[in-house]
Parts: sequence; structure tokens; C-alpha cells
Amino acid sequence: MQGAGRRGGQAGTLPKSHASNLFALRMCTVMRNVAKWLVVAGSLGLAAAAGRGDEGMWLFSAPPLDRLRRDHGMEAAPTWIEHLQQASVRFNSGGSGSFVSADGLVLTNHHVGADAIQKLGTPDRDLMRDGFLAATRSDELACHDLELNVLVSIEDVTDRVQAAVQPAAEADAAAAARRAVMAEIEKESLTASGLRSDVVTLYQGGAYHLYRYRKFTDVRLVFAPEQRIAFFGGDPDNFEFPRYNLDCCFFRAYENGQPARVPHHLAWAPRPVAAGDLVFVSGHPGHTDRANTVSELESLRDRLLPLQMQAVNRLEALYGAYAARGPEERRQVVGDLLGVQNARKARTGVLAGLLDPGVFAGLRHREAQLRNGMCTAADATTPDGTPFERIERAQADVDRVLVRYRLLESAQAFNSNYFANARAILRSVAERAKPDGERLREYRDSNRDSLELGLFSDKPLYDALEAAKLADSLTALASALGADDPLVATVLAGKSPRGRAVELVGGCELGRRADHDEAAARPDRRRELYDGGAAAVAASDDPMLALARLVDDESRAVRKVVEAAQEVKQQSHAEITRWRFEREGAAMYPDATFTLRLAYGTVRGYEEDGRPIPPITTYGGLFARAREKGDTPPFDLPPRWAALRPELEADAGFMDTPFNFVSTADIIGGNSGSPVVNRAGELIGLIFDGNIHSLVLDVAYDDTRARAIAVDTQGILAALRRVYRAHDLVAELVPSPGR
Amino acid sequence: MQGAGRRGGQAGTLPKSHASNLFALRMCTVMRNVAKWLVVAGSLGLAAAAGRGDEGMWLFSAPPLDRLRRDHGMEAAPTWIEHLQQASVRFNSGGSGSFVSADGLVLTNHHVGADAIQKLGTPDRDLMRDGFLAATRSDELACHDLELNVLVSIEDVTDRVQAAVQPAAEADAAAAARRAVMAEIEKESLTASGLRSDVVTLYQGGAYHLYRYRKFTDVRLVFAPEQRIAFFGGDPDNFEFPRYNLDCCFFRAYENGQPARVPHHLAWAPRPVAAGDLVFVSGHPGHTDRANTVSELESLRDRLLPLQMQAVNRLEALYGAYAARGPEERRQVVGDLLGVQNARKARTGVLAGLLDPGVFAGLRHREAQLRNGMCTAADATTPDGTPFERIERAQADVDRVLVRYRLLESAQAFNSNYFANARAILRSVAERAKPDGERLREYRDSNRDSLELGLFSDKPLYDALEAAKLADSLTALASALGADDPLVATVLAGKSPRGRAVELVGGCELGRRADHDEAAARPDRRRELYDGGAAAVAASDDPMLALARLVDDESRAVRKVVEAAQEVKQQSHAEITRWRFEREGAAMYPDATFTLRLAYGTVRGYEEDGRPIPPITTYGGLFARAREKGDTPPFDLPPRWAALRPELEADAGFMDTPFNFVSTADIIGGNSGSPVVNRAGELIGLIFDGNIHSLVLDVAYDDTRARAIAVDTQGILAALRRVYRAHDLVAELVPSPGR
Repeated sequence: MQGAGRRGGQAGTLPKSHASNLFALRMCTVMRNVAKWLVVAGSLGLAAAAGRGDEGMWLFSAPPLDRLRRDHGMEAAPTWIEHLQQASVRFNSGGSGSFVSADGLVLTNHHVGADAIQKLGTPDRDLMRDGFLAATRSDELACHDLELNVLVSIEDVTDRVQAAVQPAAEADAAAAARRAVMAEIEKESLTASGLRSDVVTLYQGGAYHLYRYRKFTDVRLVFAPEQRIAFFGGDPDNFEFPRYNLDCCFFRAYENGQPARVPHHLAWAPRPVAAGDLVFVSGHPGHTDRANTVSELESLRDRLLPLQMQAVNRLEALYGAYAARGPEERRQVVGDLLGVQNARKARTGVLAGLLDPGVFAGLRHREAQLRNGMCTAADATTPDGTPFERIERAQADVDRVLVRYRLLESAQAFNSNYFANARAILRSVAERAKPDGERLREYRDSNRDSLELGLFSDKPLYDALEAAKLADSLTALASALGADDPLVATVLAGKSPRGRAVELVGGCELGRRADHDEAAARPDRRRELYDGGAAAVAASDDPMLALARLVDDESRAVRKVVEAAQEVKQQSHAEITRWRFEREGAAMYPDATFTLRLAYGTVRGYEEDGRPIPPITTYGGLFARAREKGDTPPFDLPPRWAALRPELEADAGFMDTPFNFVSTADIIGGNSGSPVVNRAGELIGLIFDGNIHSLVLDVAYDDTRARAIAVDTQGILAALRRVYRAHDLVAELVPSPGR
Repeated sequence: MQGAGRRGGQAGTLPKSHASNLFALRMCTVMRNVAKWLVVAGSLGLAAAAGRGDEGMWLFSAPPLDRLRRDHGMEAAPTWIEHLQQASVRFNSGGSGSFVSADGLVLTNHHVGADAIQKLGTPDRDLMRDGFLAATRSDELACHDLELNVLVSIEDVTDRVQAAVQPAAEADAAAAARRAVMAEIEKESLTASGLRSDVVTLYQGGAYHLYRYRKFTDVRLVFAPEQRIAFFGGDPDNFEFPRYNLDCCFFRAYENGQPARVPHHLAWAPRPVAAGDLVFVSGHPGHTDRANTVSELESLRDRLLPLQMQAVNRLEALYGAYAARGPEERRQVVGDLLGVQNARKARTGVLAGLLDPGVFAGLRHREAQLRNGMCTAADATTPDGTPFERIERAQADVDRVLVRYRLLESAQAFNSNYFANARAILRSVAERAKPDGERLREYRDSNRDSLELGLFSDKPLYDALEAAKLADSLTALASALGADDPLVATVLAGKSPRGRAVELVGGCELGRRADHDEAAARPDRRRELYDGGAAAVAASDDPMLALARLVDDESRAVRKVVEAAQEVKQQSHAEITRWRFEREGAAMYPDATFTLRLAYGTVRGYEEDGRPIPPITTYGGLFARAREKGDTPPFDLPPRWAALRPELEADAGFMDTPFNFVSTADIIGGNSGSPVVNRAGELIGLIFDGNIHSLVLDVAYDDTRARAIAVDTQGILAALRRVYRAHDLVAELVPSPGR
């Protein structure tokens, strides 16, 4: 499945806001692309980035109007684009969605909503297993910590950001100045507009845009199917096609306790999609590496990805073993398990692409051409060498601290929600005392609401699970650094990883323990310490807070190294981007940054081992696939579907209803839940995955076999009507008579 | 479960005979021990190894007669010991067993037989899932490549081995001389006796014994229960107690096409075991590290175990994903999957023990005492330093090449049965041309039959699985060494890992492809090339053979480094052992070496979190456990058991039948399938696991909470009678009337 998006990071090493380890892994689910066509078309060189076929993740402030006109005879009016932008929704947990009614109804993927859905479960209510339909609006379930964003405006602030950084400044000082001006712009905007305001780094530092968002934090669950039909075929069919997934769910945004009235929402298309149709995707691709240099990609291939695979494999074993303990344990951990399984398949695909010598030769060739063209221009070479050489040295700086950075600052050594809360409190209190512009970026004033939403989440924590996660990650810490490393000895404090984890989790009072665990009930002191400030934090003897304090200096130190290197990279990339802008101009789109982008493509099948793969599947295919696999997990139907099967199979109209389809649209992880619309701007699909060939396409676009996979909205409607009898929901989606 | 045994290795780095990667991992399932009691009793120091409570894995040539007399009032007559030795069976695939009838019937664990059972399966016959009972002797199923050994005699050849090594020789030359004299002794013995003859290295090089075995290679499956009841509770209950596993199966040894007549077999005990009983375990513990030095244990903790965990986690994800594709894929890979899950839990436990600072402090203290005592004696210090210092330097030599050694010589980079066959052919042909004593040890003449049994196994290979394994391991190779490493580039030959794997597997003609895969049928040229010798091998264009050739020089080079270091270690350990012998004498037993040992202990419960755990479970407990877990996998009963459940639950006699029990006997991985006998030498149990507290006991014995877990033979009999109606089998086991 198209995993959740990455927030504000590049090359996987930038700091994240209030990132629990959970989130650190969810980030891994971002899909990346490495162009197959580079193998055969390395000579295209620079043209690669200038666009080919339906390539591009375009800024809404610079949509590809000429290309749409030229290639598809499509006139995208400003109102058409504005409507699509305002109807698009970002799931801040990492994903996309869209408004589908005037009353704030939001459509997204089941796997994007899964984190929220799972947290709403209890030992007596397994919403992942059984699904959910709110009988009335008052039955809609308020999520614990879900934030939705709608992009309201875009403003170019590149000049102001660049002007704040002295050309001759050391990397440390330059990074600080850049951070300060970005925080200043954001705070001004927040104060003036009341809107969430983020300065977004585009083109690896070539441009800075101010994005303002309308924000919703009261979000309620309306409908979710059983996870088994949302993710039919499970891990084996993940990233495959043909496919049969009802990967959808509905939330509703609320304001002041009432359903939010929204000015823009997408209308349900009256007809299903057909082969050859032009389609548009509006969503939030998380991260791509298309403009990265070869030295950055080598590091990705030989260092970061192998480390990520180690972590993902370890966690898949951990979560799998925990889930196997029993149905309740499975309920607690199933979301995490699905996340790491997805990440394993996605990361494997990216690594496979980068390990393809043909692909990498193409990347080297492309860069050689760029260097030849650019570095003969004398002004591109400073006493520090070319921008490419400076990036290579900066990457080496990152690589030297990469293991410690991931363990400490990304907190992979402390895989517990309690630790994430402890660190957020410790650092909030410390950072609050500083001027806004001097803080760690996630603690800036303009991000405070989002930070608090995560920190004070009501999601239940399960101590057995937290202890298992923490023991495992402390073991990984010792294995990575060696048990005699002074930091390891300090962290373990004379205990075994398991003993230390039990002690830390058992004594921590910084989270909401699951209600049913009355015996272990302890007070929840998050608010008390957060509000109490430095004095309260200093006086606390919470063991997890003490651990966060213990590793804070070293965590901040490695972060500083990485941020300084990142500053050097940004300056160098800015130079490269300026050079390319002058030649490619508007034909350039920036790498993905989990901000709103417009993509487009054609509904089209492809060839696999010489066989043609048609672009659209049906419900008939679903039942055939289940039968082919003997109805055994993960190819079994939920009870509701199994019971209705004879009736549905007897209905040719239902069996022929389109279910999933593919297109050539240029998407990546974070696009999960993106609306797919037709020329009329009507909703015809819901992106939920890319096929296996799209997995390796992090560094360039391809349309030979790479495809975006969507649920057909006619298929969703058919299931709501015939299987779930969700008549009120259907009436809200397609209010006009005759449908 | 108590995993399969390790063959002929120390510190996990010694070469193995014809080891496929599969076996390399199966080795990981060896259980190890780290003494909890060291935490509280570090001051016991040297006494540790001299025995405490029921400690010890004793040589049958030096049984602990005095201790048995002193502690248990037991007189073990020579005939009693001889009978037990001759009735004990080694499963050369890594496990233990015993003769239980005069007609060669062998009892072992289901999980020891699983590899053979799985290979007997076909797409239409899933013996792991459904179990098997031969209706008559002619229905018994001949295994593809199972070798059983019965220890016939033991001869001390220490003087001859040591005399062959010049005191002043360089490590290389010393290792070669040692290898040569061992091969010479073995070949002489084989020629004279016709028996399999192995020189076994004991006390880390302190002694050398010649073991002669009667060998059976025609072994047939008689009975196996469903894997679900053999491994009830699966991964979550693995290494736990209370426990409810029918972890048994029966094979029969054949000679000349007839059931083997065996002079010794164990009689079924007429009464079940009771708390407090003295019991004996005769089996083949695989590997322990009790005499290892601190520098060796640090390397185990910080280097080898983390690498093993990475490999195990990666393979668990790979095999799990492959199994999820469908029932047939699950059938093909389930044995491998169970193996790596078991290894993950076992390795985690060992690592947890070594990461316990208290445990490690105890180990350091013990060594400090030993060094103080020994190294003040001037003769223990040479110009190269003390034996401890020499071992530390040798360990550093091993550590420097450890990653490459595992990838290349242990073939973890080439995880395919086809590669294992290719290497075995390549090296057999090359080594055959050398004098016996100069060959790589696994190619010595005395091992030829065993080597050929593995190489020419009729087990079916599945190309999709082989390609998936190989692609994954080639990716691991690139990630470990970096994609630009010259060796990686040579191995991948300009292709991606996946592309290269498909090419290698698809083109290989060195194995038996699964029958049902007719389309891909290719000739099997194993015998042709093996018999054809150097000319045939040189002329072959088999791609896997070419790969084996490509990496052979570098593989042999790293092996040479490791073997030289091992020689230094052996000489140094021999010095330490001699010093200890003079002080401890017969109270010493050697570390485990997958050779026959005698252990003993008491049937006794223990305490867990303040609650007493009784030592014996019953069938009543099995049904209660299934019910508690909602009868969901892995706590579900096979159909046969579910159908009989009402009838069985109504029968109080059946419900009270003992099922599993624990004792304080000193066991480790490789002991799986060991017979447990009472004072009368009658069979009362079948070792199949240790509890979680025994997992960390690689370096010393403990009887506080560490326990060996066995299936009660009365429980086996009850299942055979009531559930499987295996009346002929029962009659063969308990032939006398009135039972």
C-alpha cells in the first residue's frame, strides 16, 4: 500500500516534529521511485527532470497548464484548480484525502485511517477486524489525535529566507539563521491569519514557500470496512496488480462540536472510469530523491536503506510475535505490524532499484552531464569545490553520525510512546524558554497546536507492548554500539535491556494506560509537567523523563551535525537548482515534500512477463481470487461478505462493477487517499497503492510498467449499498435523485 | 523448541561440512546458556565449571559415577550405561533420538524430524499440516537425506594428535598438521572397522577422542502427528512452560531393505513420571560456551549475535512473506519459517543474558580468578603473552573477517540449495585430487558417505522459493559490503540481485526440481559432474557452478584466516584445560560438541513472578489453554483433535494423563529428541525444549529457574491409542500384555 507520508525531511535524516519511533517507521512506508527507463535511456540525461509523458508532481501554484493543453487538449481553468485544491485534505499522520460532502465528510484510505481506527478500539471492540458504521451523526467516534489540513494559500518567501542567511556564514550559523527566519515568517503568518503556517523547503533548498492551512483537530470516524476486505490479499498482494481492495474509510471534520461546513467538496462521478481516460490526482506525495546527487544516492543505497531494512525486519519479527500471543495482543499491534510489513516490501523495492547496476549507471550518467555543463561555468566552483563536491562532503558528515542519529535523535533506541511523550515534555519546556527562532524547529510557536495534539493524545497504551518494544530497541542499541559503549552502560543503568525496559515503562506516568489494566493504573502527569515548566520537570522523578534527559545532550549534538550538513547541502542544491531553472524553467517541479501536488495520467494497463494486464478489475475478480487461494488468509472474506457471497455472485451487475484501476499518474507514498478526478473534476477514484514496478521509481518517472492503483468510487458505492446498507452515507455522497 | 545441533563448530565460526545456508541457520537454533546464578554467586569462581547441583553434560567414557552415588544414591552399572549409550541415536541433521523397539523403531521430536517430513510432502500431500501414520511397514516413507548415527565406541587419541603438531610451528602449519593427523586416524579407523569414524575436539582442544558410529541412511517415516499439535502454542509458547506439545514422531532405521535389528532399545516405563524423580537424559547437546574466555564472549555478544539476529530477522520476514502467498507456498517453506522463528527467540534469549551487566560481571570475575591463579605460574606466560591474551588476539583476527566469512564461506550471501550443491561438487572434485590429510575437513574420505547423502538428496527444490532466497541474500551481500565493492560487482555481473538470482536458479542443473513444475524441467547433472571430476566440472557452463568458482578463492582465504586463529585458540585452551585438569580432575566435563552426553536431574517445578509453576502438565491443561485463547491459531487444535474433544473431555482418565514435564537436567540445543529415562533405564520422556530461563545459560549451569522440558511418554501413548488409533505402533512399543 502507498504508505504514509514523510514530514519535513530530506534524505531521511532531518529532524521530525514530536516523532515517536512509531512515526519514524511509518516514514519508511513512503514509496520511492527509481526509473527503469534510465537503463535504456540514460542518454536522455537532464531531460529526465524536464518531464516525459505524464511525469510530474506539480505545485498548485505552478500547474502544468501548457503540457495539459499540448498533450491532452485539456484547459484547466483557475477555478477548476482552486476547487480541487480546496477540496483536498492532508492527513497529518501521513496521507491524503478529500472532502466529499458540504458537511465535512472526508474520504481516505482505510490504511491511512488505520492508526486512528485502531486507537479507537478496546478489548471488547475490534474496529480493525469488524469494521464500523455510525448509525447516526451522534454515533460518529471522535479520534484521539488526528489532524487534518486544507491548503488555503501559497506565498513565495524565497528572497526573504535567502536574505537572512549571510553568504559567508559558517554552516552552523547559517542553519540557525535560516531556522530563525522561517520561524519568524510562520509566526507572523499565524498571528495575522490564525491559520497553520509552514515554510516549505522546495527544490532541496532552491525555493521556500509559505503554505497556510485550515486545520481540523476534531475528526470523527463515520465508516470503516473490515480490514480484511480493505487489505484483501494482505502482504502477498501488496504492491501487486490485479488487485481487489476496498481500501477506503470515511471521517467527518468537526468545528465547535458541529460538522464543519466546507466551501469545496468533490462530487461523485456519475460514470465509472474507462481505459484511456485522463485522470488527475491531488495529494501529498511524501518524499522523492529525483534531484539528489549520486553521492547522496550511494549513501541511501549502502547506508540508510540497509539500516532501515534491519530495523524493519527486526520490528516485523517483534510485532508478529506479539500479535501471535492472542487475539487481544493482535488487536493492539496489528496497525504497527501492517506498517512494518508494508515498509519491508517498499524498502526492498527501492533498494532493488538502486542495486540495479543499469539504473545506477543511468544516474551517474545524468549527473556527469549536469556536472559537465555546470562546473565548466567558473562561478559554480568555489574554493570549497563544486556544489557536487560540497554535497558529497556533507553527506559524509551525515554518514559518520548516521547510526547514532537514528538511535538517539530519531529515538529508534527508545521505541516506546512513553519515551516520545517524555522527550516532547522535556524539550518543550526547555525550548519554550528560548526565542522562537532559536528553538528546535518542531517546538516553534506556530507548530504548538499540532505538537500538543500528539503529546496529549488519548490513545490507550499497553504496558506489555510498550515494554516489549522498549526491550527490543534497547537491545538494538547495545548491539549497534557494543555493550561496553559508555552511553549504553549509562542507558541500561546496570540492568539487562528487558529489566530496564520493564522498570522504565512500569514507572512512567506520561501517558494514558489502557483502561482495562486497572491493576497498573497510575496517574497521568503529562499535562502537569508540560504546564509546570522547568521547575516541575526538574522536580519529577519519572524514570522515562530521566532517560530522555540522560540522552538529550548527545541527541542534540548529533542533530546539530546533521543540520549543519543539511545546510551545506541546501546551499549547494540551491546553486544547482538556479542553474537548472535558467535552462528548464517552468518545466521543473520540485521533489516531493508531503505538500499538496497535482499529478495526472492515463488509465492504462501494462505488460507483465509478456501477458497484458488490463487496467480495471471488478468484484467478480475479487471472488475468483478468494476461490483460487482456497479462501485462506489473507485471501479470506470477512463474515459479512462471505454470507452475502451467493447473492452477490448471482448478480451480474454487481460482479461487473469496477473495483480497482491503474493509471500512469506520478505518485509516491503520502499520496495514499488522494482523490482521483476526471476532466470534469468529479471523483472517480481513490489512490491506495503503486504496483511493484513503481516501487523503485524514487529518482525518476517511468510509464512503461509503473502504475498508480486506485479504488474505483463506483466500487465503493456498490459496497456501501449492497454489503453495508449504509444508506444515509450513500445519500450524503450522491444526493441527487436518479443515481 | 530445542533446536537442532551444531556440527563440529566452536564460537560459531568454524567451517562446517557441506553446509547449505539452511543448515547455517539451523545452527542458530542451538540453545546457549548464561548463568543467572553468576549474578548472585560470582564468587564461586572456578567452582562453576566443577559442577553444582545436577550440572553436567558428561562423556559416556567418563560418567559422573561418584556424584550420582553421593547426591542421589544411584549406582550406575557399566551395563546400564552401555545399554543407554547403544540405544541412543544421533540425527545427523541436528538432533537426538532413541531406539524404542528391536526392529529399529526410532523416537524423536516432530521438530527434529520436520525437515525430513516436509521434504516428503508434495502439493497434494501436506504431511506437516495433516500428519502421517503408515498403515503397514510397506507404507513407511523413505526419507530423502536423513542419516542416523549410533555411538559404538570411544577412544582417546589426544597424544597422537598433539604429537603430530610441532610446538614451534606457525598457526597455519600447525592447523594443517592437526587436520592431517585427524583425517589419518579417521581413515584408518574407517578402513579397519567399516564404521563412521570422527575425531572429536573436546575441551576446546584439551583432548581428542575417536568416536565410531554405526550409521543408518535408509530411514523411513512411521508416524508424525499434525504440526499444530506437535507445536501447539507456536511461537508465543515456544520456550515457555506450562506447555502442551505432542512434539514426537517415529522413524524406522532400515538395513538392506529390511528393518534394522538393533541390540539395544529402550523399554517404555510402566508408570508416568512424578515430581522429585531422578531422571537421565542421553543426547547430543550441540554447543556451549562455558569454557570460553571473556574476549570470546564479548565478540559473541557484540559481533556474532547481532549479525545472527540480523540474518534471522531478515529470513523470518522473507519466509513469512513467502508462506503468506498461499497454502502451497506455506507447505514448501513452513519448516524454514519455524526454524528461523525458533532461532530468533533462542538468539534473543542468549543475547539478553550476555547483555545483563550482572551476568557479564560474574563472567569477568570468574576469569579474573582463573587468570590470577594460572598466570602467576611462570610457565603459562610465553613471549606471546598468556593464553588469555593469545585467545584475545586470535578472536580479533576472526572478528576482522567475520562478516566476509559468514557471507562467503558460510554462504549466507548465496542462500540456495542449488549453490550448496554447486559448491559441494566444485570442492569435492578439487579436494579429491589432494592427499586425504590436506583436504578441507568435510571432504576427507571418512566423511564421503555423509557428504554424498546430502549432495544427492532427492528432496524437491522449488525455483520460485530458491530465487526469492537467493535474491534476498544477494541483496544482503550488497548491503553488507556496499554495492561498489569489487566482489559484489563480480557476483552480480551487471544485474540486479533479483535479476541475477532468477538467472542463476533458472539455469542451474544441480538439483531435483519439484515434479509438478514440468515446464521448468531440466536435467539433473549433479552425479554426472561429481563423477566426471575436474574435466567435467571445468567444461560445465552451469551458472551456479560458475558462481561457486567465482567466489571460491576469497571464501577459502577467509576460511584460512579463521582456521589459523582457531588453531591458536585451541592451543591456548589446551593449556588452560591442562591447568584446570590438574586441579579439578574428573569433575570436569567438556563443552558440548554435538556428541553423545549423559545429563541427569530432578523433576521439579519453579517459581515465576512469585507463583509456583508445577512440573507436570496434563491433557486437561491442553484443552483449557486452547479455550483460553479462543481456539485461534496457534492455539487451535487439528481437526482430528477438535472432533474428538467432547469424547476426550468427558474422560477424566485421559484428561489427567501427564503430557509435558520439566526437570533440572543440563541440556542445550541438539538435545531435542533425547530420551529421558528413570533409574531403571526405562523411557519416561522425550526432551523437546528448555524454558525461557534456560535460554541464557550458554556459559554456565543453573537450577533456580532453568528447566528442560519433555513430552511424557505416557502422554504419547495415550494420544497414539485414543486419537490416532495407532494400534500396531502401540503394540510394538509396549508389547507385553497388561499394559
